[in-house]
Amino acid sequence: MTSQPLINADRLWTRLMALAEIGATPAGGVNRQALSDGEIAAWRRVIGWALEAGLTPSTDAAGNLFLALAGQDRAAPPFLLGSHLDSQPTGGKFDGAAGVMAALEAAVTLAEQGDKPARDVIVVAWMNEEGSRFAPGMMGSEAFTGERDVAAIRAARDADGVSVGEALDRLHQAFRDLPHRPLGFAVESYLELHIEQGPLLEAAACTIGVVTGIQGKKTFQVVVEGAEGHAGTLAQQERRDALAAFARIATALHAEIGTIDTDIKFTIGRVAVMPNAPSVVPSRVSFSIDLRHPENAALTAAGVRITALCREYAPPCTVTVTPLVDAPSNAFDPQLQASIARASHDQGHPTMAILSAAGHDARHLAKICPAAMIFIPCRDGASHVEHEWAEPADVAAGASVLVQVLREVELARRSFTARHESGG
Amino acid sequence: MTSQPLINADRLWTRLMALAEIGATPAGGVNRQALSDGEIAAWRRVIGWALEAGLTPSTDAAGNLFLALAGQDRAAPPFLLGSHLDSQPTGGKFDGAAGVMAALEAAVTLAEQGDKPARDVIVVAWMNEEGSRFAPGMMGSEAFTGERDVAAIRAARDADGVSVGEALDRLHQAFRDLPHRPLGFAVESYLELHIEQGPLLEAAACTIGVVTGIQGKKTFQVVVEGAEGHAGTLAQQERRDALAAFARIATALHAEIGTIDTDIKFTIGRVAVMPNAPSVVPSRVSFSIDLRHPENAALTAAGVRITALCREYAPPCTVTVTPLVDAPSNAFDPQLQASIARASHDQGHPTMAILSAAGHDARHLAKICPAAMIFIPCRDGASHVEHEWAEPADVAAGASVLVQVLREVELARRSFTARHESGG
Repeated sequence: MTSQPLINADRLWTRLMALAEIGATPAGGVNRQALSDGEIAAWRRVIGWALEAGLTPSTDAAGNLFLALAGQDRAAPPFLLGSHLDSQPTGGKFDGAAGVMAALEAAVTLAEQGDKPARDVIVVAWMNEEGSRFAPGMMGSEAFTGERDVAAIRAARDADGVSVGEALDRLHQAFRDLPHRPLGFAVESYLELHIEQGPLLEAAACTIGVVTGIQGKKTFQVVVEGAEGHAGTLAQQERRDALAAFARIATALHAEIGTIDTDIKFTIGRVAVMPNAPSVVPSRVSFSIDLRHPENAALTAAGVRITALCREYAPPCTVTVTPLVDAPSNAFDPQLQASIARASHDQGHPTMAILSAAGHDARHLAKICPAAMIFIPCRDGASHVEHEWAEPADVAAGASVLVQVLREVELARRSFTARHESGG
Repeated sequence: MTSQPLINADRLWTRLMALAEIGATPAGGVNRQALSDGEIAAWRRVIGWALEAGLTPSTDAAGNLFLALAGQDRAAPPFLLGSHLDSQPTGGKFDGAAGVMAALEAAVTLAEQGDKPARDVIVVAWMNEEGSRFAPGMMGSEAFTGERDVAAIRAARDADGVSVGEALDRLHQAFRDLPHRPLGFAVESYLELHIEQGPLLEAAACTIGVVTGIQGKKTFQVVVEGAEGHAGTLAQQERRDALAAFARIATALHAEIGTIDTDIKFTIGRVAVMPNAPSVVPSRVSFSIDLRHPENAALTAAGVRITALCREYAPPCTVTVTPLVDAPSNAFDPQLQASIARASHDQGHPTMAILSAAGHDARHLAKICPAAMIFIPCRDGASHVEHEWAEPADVAAGASVLVQVLREVELARRSFTARHESGG
């Protein structure tokens, strides 16, 4: 039997739908890209709800938004929970927003019930998770955890030539009165709720996914160089046809890398051909490789083979393989996973352990503190689409689990700290 | 020993260079696309030179330009010779223009020397040979020979949305006083001089290429349809990856079709991937095929195999193969070829028989009358580039051969006609 949620389910759903009105698309989706007017409007609305409950808003140099519920020890590293408010250009109502609103609902619930946690509980909305307006994504969490320099992030530009720096300054100008926190303060733990973006929870009729980790990801940019020629006159045996070489390479990669095991994910998603004219032998083909695997050893081995296969099949053309992203798989904190499973069980929600195939800000937080994620189902596994959908009861269940985990972890840490301090 | 040219070599070169000033590019090339202001200005200049020599200009519904030297029998089908005045956007001074100016020089020479031919000799500049502004090319000669309907040609639009019809009306408005000939009148013979656009004449140190024919060409548009998916979540064995299918198809086509024999030319020049994002499994790949062969049987057989190979390697994706161009190879008139070889020999120009790899307006004229082409060398075989170059002496040699062929053919036809009429 499912118990009553520990949070105000109606309020959570109403606020989530109100948020989705900002940047709403005619087809029912959301276009609220990073640092846009839409995101500024979303900040205003979320800050308003936080202030109502007595939470304190602040920001930092990377444009992250923090909403703090004061704890007993204000100087202790806070407990962070949240996700992001930016969306894909044709995104949905839940990717990111569900995690921020569930976290806010959990913090507001604690505030309303006068349950003052051991340390501050801070709801966070990370800047530019999606990376659709400014590439690559996860800028806020990477800057926060020291993965990337703020100066480098500020230099990135959108398709209109606007830099992150300009857009960030505009955001901060719109919230002149908001205090700034130092970038990258110490964190006790991090929790993130997110829709699954896959079909597994729905298929297994589970309400809560206890995320074990995020699969590792490598990306490469490959450039095949040949020589241009006239399609009607250049003899076949004298050609250095970059498209023909690309086709051989791609066929070999799909055949070998794509069948290493059933966990591998291998994708050539973007291809650019030069000069790309019907009657000209192509001189240059550049293409992207997206490689993912839950085990780092398998990921590393596959990466090495990719380079070897590109070199083997390129001649008479030449090939350059440039590694871009190299994000090893990570495992989330076992104690936090156990807390999530326990809370779900207590509340009567069927759970399953699940690996995240997609990247999330939690990947970066996991490097600086114990971190974990809660997945809730999304219809047909569809995400990054306008018809993305999660059931109100599942959003409420996730937020309710968040509240219980917060309480349990804060209690456990308090006794641990007490034991540790007395034993020291 | 090379004899003195039968034409005024200085005048021909000076005029060709003056023509190249119209639409001249900073890098020394020409941008004078079909029906542009540049082509209108080129018409004005060419018509001026023709009028000076007593030739009569006219046009037709397809925007072809005719410059007629009156013959003895004005009612007899005329002898046509020429090429085109339009260029690629980054074209050179010779492709097309050399053929029109050599033809004009030949006609002007006949006029000056009072050598009145048996029938009218008409210099022609065909509308839109290149097909760069309005696709596909050879509109003027195809409309003239009945290959394509003028109404269909008028409907084609350039990148700015301007239709051929609008541009044609503008051209005719600019030359309001020019008489209109009926479209597609009877023609006695057709001759076209053109730069080779290949390296063979230069390599063999030949001044004149006696073109035996134009190799056959087929083009196809192929569309591979799969299903979009998330690169991080969709299991490899459940994918219908359009890019993977394209790579298999392209590899098989290059391996089999590209090695049928040493005469085959097989090119995949243009590729479009949808949605073309690094982390999305491609749902659709469309690509172009350009296939050429001097023998029609081989061309037809290769075309059939292309469709079969696309179907064999597409699953689990689907594939659609749409034939576009189907231009069989053609052989030029043996008597005209013999005349060209004889005239070249008489004037001391080394010749070779040569197959045209590229298409020309002469392909269409060959369907309605005896036709032939003269190639002259171009440096490094380079064409459709701004540094395209032909030597003044080679241009003069080509024009000089034109004059001699005109005289010989006209004499031969006169005696043939006389014999035929007396014998009838």
